[in-house]
Amino acid sequence: MYTIKPNRAKLLISCNDRPGIVSAVSRFLLEHKANIVQSDQYTTDPEGGIFFMRVEFDLQDFDSTYPLIEKDFSSVARDFDMDWKLANPNKRKRMAILVSKEDHCLMELLWRQRAGEIPVDIPMVISNHEDTRAAVEAYGIPFYHVPVTRETKKESEQKILELLEGKVDFIVLARYMQILSSEFVTHYPNQIINIHHSFLPAFIGANPYKRAFERGVKLIGATAHYVTDDLDEGPIIEQDVLRVNHRYSADELKITGRQAERIALARAVSWHIDDRILVYGNKTVIF
Amino acid sequence: MYTIKPNRAKLLISCNDRPGIVSAVSRFLLEHKANIVQSDQYTTDPEGGIFFMRVEFDLQDFDSTYPLIEKDFSSVARDFDMDWKLANPNKRKRMAILVSKEDHCLMELLWRQRAGEIPVDIPMVISNHEDTRAAVEAYGIPFYHVPVTRETKKESEQKILELLEGKVDFIVLARYMQILSSEFVTHYPNQIINIHHSFLPAFIGANPYKRAFERGVKLIGATAHYVTDDLDEGPIIEQDVLRVNHRYSADELKITGRQAERIALARAVSWHIDDRILVYGNKTVIF
Amino acid sequence: MYTIKPNRAKLLISCNDRPGIVSAVSRFLLEHKANIVQSDQYTTDPEGGIFFMRVEFDLQDFDSTYPLIEKDFSSVARDFDMDWKLANPNKRKRMAILVSKEDHCLMELLWRQRAGEIPVDIPMVISNHEDTRAAVEAYGIPFYHVPVTRETKKESEQKILELLEGKVDFIVLARYMQILSSEFVTHYPNQIINIHHSFLPAFIGANPYKRAFERGVKLIGATAHYVTDDLDEGPIIEQDVLRVNHRYSADELKITGRQAERIALARAVSWHIDDRILVYGNKTVIF
Amino acid sequence: MYTIKPNRAKLLISCNDRPGIVSAVSRFLLEHKANIVQSDQYTTDPEGGIFFMRVEFDLQDFDSTYPLIEKDFSSVARDFDMDWKLANPNKRKRMAILVSKEDHCLMELLWRQRAGEIPVDIPMVISNHEDTRAAVEAYGIPFYHVPVTRETKKESEQKILELLEGKVDFIVLARYMQILSSEFVTHYPNQIINIHHSFLPAFIGANPYKRAFERGVKLIGATAHYVTDDLDEGPIIEQDVLRVNHRYSADELKITGRQAERIALARAVSWHIDDRILVYGNKTVIF
Repeated sequence: MYTIKPNRAKLLISCNDRPGIVSAVSRFLLEHKANIVQSDQYTTDPEGGIFFMRVEFDLQDFDSTYPLIEKDFSSVARDFDMDWKLANPNKRKRMAILVSKEDHCLMELLWRQRAGEIPVDIPMVISNHEDTRAAVEAYGIPFYHVPVTRETKKESEQKILELLEGKVDFIVLARYMQILSSEFVTHYPNQIINIHHSFLPAFIGANPYKRAFERGVKLIGATAHYVTDDLDEGPIIEQDVLRVNHRYSADELKITGRQAERIALARAVSWHIDDRILVYGNKTVIF
Repeated sequence: MYTIKPNRAKLLISCNDRPGIVSAVSRFLLEHKANIVQSDQYTTDPEGGIFFMRVEFDLQDFDSTYPLIEKDFSSVARDFDMDWKLANPNKRKRMAILVSKEDHCLMELLWRQRAGEIPVDIPMVISNHEDTRAAVEAYGIPFYHVPVTRETKKESEQKILELLEGKVDFIVLARYMQILSSEFVTHYPNQIINIHHSFLPAFIGANPYKRAFERGVKLIGATAHYVTDDLDEGPIIEQDVLRVNHRYSADELKITGRQAERIALARAVSWHIDDRILVYGNKTVIF
Repeated sequence: MYTIKPNRAKLLISCNDRPGIVSAVSRFLLEHKANIVQSDQYTTDPEGGIFFMRVEFDLQDFDSTYPLIEKDFSSVARDFDMDWKLANPNKRKRMAILVSKEDHCLMELLWRQRAGEIPVDIPMVISNHEDTRAAVEAYGIPFYHVPVTRETKKESEQKILELLEGKVDFIVLARYMQILSSEFVTHYPNQIINIHHSFLPAFIGANPYKRAFERGVKLIGATAHYVTDDLDEGPIIEQDVLRVNHRYSADELKITGRQAERIALARAVSWHIDDRILVYGNKTVIF
Repeated sequence: MYTIKPNRAKLLISCNDRPGIVSAVSRFLLEHKANIVQSDQYTTDPEGGIFFMRVEFDLQDFDSTYPLIEKDFSSVARDFDMDWKLANPNKRKRMAILVSKEDHCLMELLWRQRAGEIPVDIPMVISNHEDTRAAVEAYGIPFYHVPVTRETKKESEQKILELLEGKVDFIVLARYMQILSSEFVTHYPNQIINIHHSFLPAFIGANPYKRAFERGVKLIGATAHYVTDDLDEGPIIEQDVLRVNHRYSADELKITGRQAERIALARAVSWHIDDRILVYGNKTVIF
């Protein structure tokens, strides 16, 4: 369904804003016979702000041209002191999923991957419980059980890091009910996506559905965000809400919220895979 | 457009749940030749919960029957220890609007009232500023300027209470940027509707749009609620959100949020007028 | 998660409106010691309209009381010439799923059923293709392949009817790309739910996503409806839409539309299971 | 509120796609010391498709630089056979509103203009009825009554064209219930915005709310589109929907639909003013 275009590449840039960036980048692409398909630029402030750019382009002779672009662009990048990344469509990203017991976000991602809606490889699913093993293995994906207790937290994270090492590009916490240590997060900066079961910053912390029930809210939400050291404070990628009413019990809020979680997480993951997200401070630019 | 049915009445009931309530009410209505058009019942818990009911019914000979119903129902109510209210369609509710400088919620209500979308009388608009006087008077509605300073707060509230006395049934704070005292609120329990410019409980307190901008949220919201002693903690009536993105400045969030405010407030006011809201604790049942 | 309350029953009624219905029903329930938990009534027109009612109630001694209610209510029903139905919570509904090749709606229903979000039995999945067999059997559900060609349509439908006979209460067409004959539909009046991949009545007929792409719409939708003789004209149960823009190819509209399909269908199925839907003419009342 | 940046200009381009466009445009802007604030590009197909571009940029010495850009860009445009437009922020667009009797869309636009939410001048409102005169004149805006009958249609349109001549840049049909002739439309190609009271292409033609009521839809919508010769077939700019249910009468669908109309139209007008819309065939690109 979702067709990968084998000769299409994506370039992502962020740097301090100053005149000439777009001109330099587009001239570079023209010289390398790239044909721009879609492009977005944005600056937080034309005076002293940060500049963001994302370009999708087609290459005529991909195999010979792509490596040249990768090599040559560094001089342009140096001129403007850019953070940059070139995305190769022929190298699918590799996503690990971490999950605890509730499987709705996990199943959403597994199904979408198999249906071709998210072009990604899933080399493994890791869980601190055995509950989802059968469902994962039915998709032909390796499942690793890494239990976590208060005492073994450090060792467990170490074990997970070893499993991931060299095998994955980013991690999705699909209702993984363990807080990752700063040290763990450091290994995957802006590469860990979490789904929080509330409309952040409302109901930060534990038991959001119970608290939503007690407060009597009329919309229930979910937030997909990158994980940082500050719990629930990482850059927000996507949020969604669904309408509820007085008839909903706390449990029914939870069931409804699951939908919002699946939708928000699936969108966030799909944008991440498509290199549409640029992070600055605790915010995201989504192109 | 919105046709008042002159022979239609509404009965609202809440009481501790126990068997026989619906039967007693419907038998009473049948004996008084009322024809039920629409009815809703809900109980928080069939064992020891609170029961809520709203019935709309048509009366055949309204002028003679309605007073009888009003009189006779008290014995039913006594049997079940009910809180109850009978709403007479021929007596339009009277709504005062309190506003400061921003006029978007005010204009929404004035326009809807004139267009016949909300069947209500507006005997007065009161403001602590002169800014909206011309707009209000263009609608032929009396405008009162009651300035408020830290020192005169008590006198100002007294002045407002005198203006309202006997003239209005409920109050809408359409972006009225003063916190009402407990004493003031006591005069109009569950009869003061406020529009808060955030998706509560997110961004409780001041400057929600600025804080939403800083947090980088992807949805911006508004909350209509009844005013109680606890600031921003009153029973939520309605909430709405609109999608925003990284391109929105704090000012543009504010403009977008205005729309959510207008929509949420207009719905809340219209349900209040139509006697669709029952309050219990800090929650609402909306029938 | 979704807790079945074993002593809770539901009564659904529709009949010509006239005074006394609610009173008779609630007195009947009181006499049978039923405690009303939630109830809705609606009339299309108090003068000569149709009256609809849905009551959820708890019974104290379910096993002995329920059969009595079932037996005794017929005399109340006769007095008012009612269509009525009593739903027993201890008898889970049995749902057959018919599907062709695309599995997103199928997987949504299978997952929700297993997660306990929709309390229903799924005795079988029937398909005119083999594609979804493995996925279905992984859930432990029998899968039947009944191919359909232009020539064998009649026999195929006969085969399906035999498979269903006595085994299912209602049918979901989860992207089943065959048009059912009038004769087939007659066997399951208002018991076949279809998901149409457009916001009906827009794009009735084939290839709605292609046509939506050509028309340049900004929202893409889906419609769940009961199947009647008139293709795409049956009573609408639920609709949903998602925002799209000029960047979406026809294929991406399709992927986006799948989400709307899953959401709308899951809601419709869940309301059907919970006996919340009453049909009149080509419309539905959803309580 | 909405701050016009006096040194910011916008350039809109469409042309057949081929390599080098972005490079040429960005080099041109760099040479003229323009600082790009935001930019979007899109191509319908990198092989033989149409290319669209919108750039917002700041100029250092606006008064001297802007005329140069206006003059010099034509040679770039010629090289690529571009359709292009340069928008001067210091020249506010001038919008005429045509309206019949229903004033909700009119009031929405008048209020937003006065509140500074849409930076536009409104030199006149024209109506075929007198109903909205007072409301318009209260805003200090000239109101012209141009009655239309079947016989005088041609003369009336002529009269309107004369009123508009040289005074306005674009026209909004804010529930103007007359069909404009092809000849009239020719004078303002892609400069007439209409709000249609349905979710097009559903319920094309007359009485959409009545037909929506009869069909029993669960969402009610509105569509803002550019007016072309083909009635209801012009390029769609924006659509919105709101949820309704079986309790809504045809009149209540209408009231609800008004909200969707106001929201969709206000967005479309605001994007048009901000030069965010590019038209090709019967579609729009919204940047």
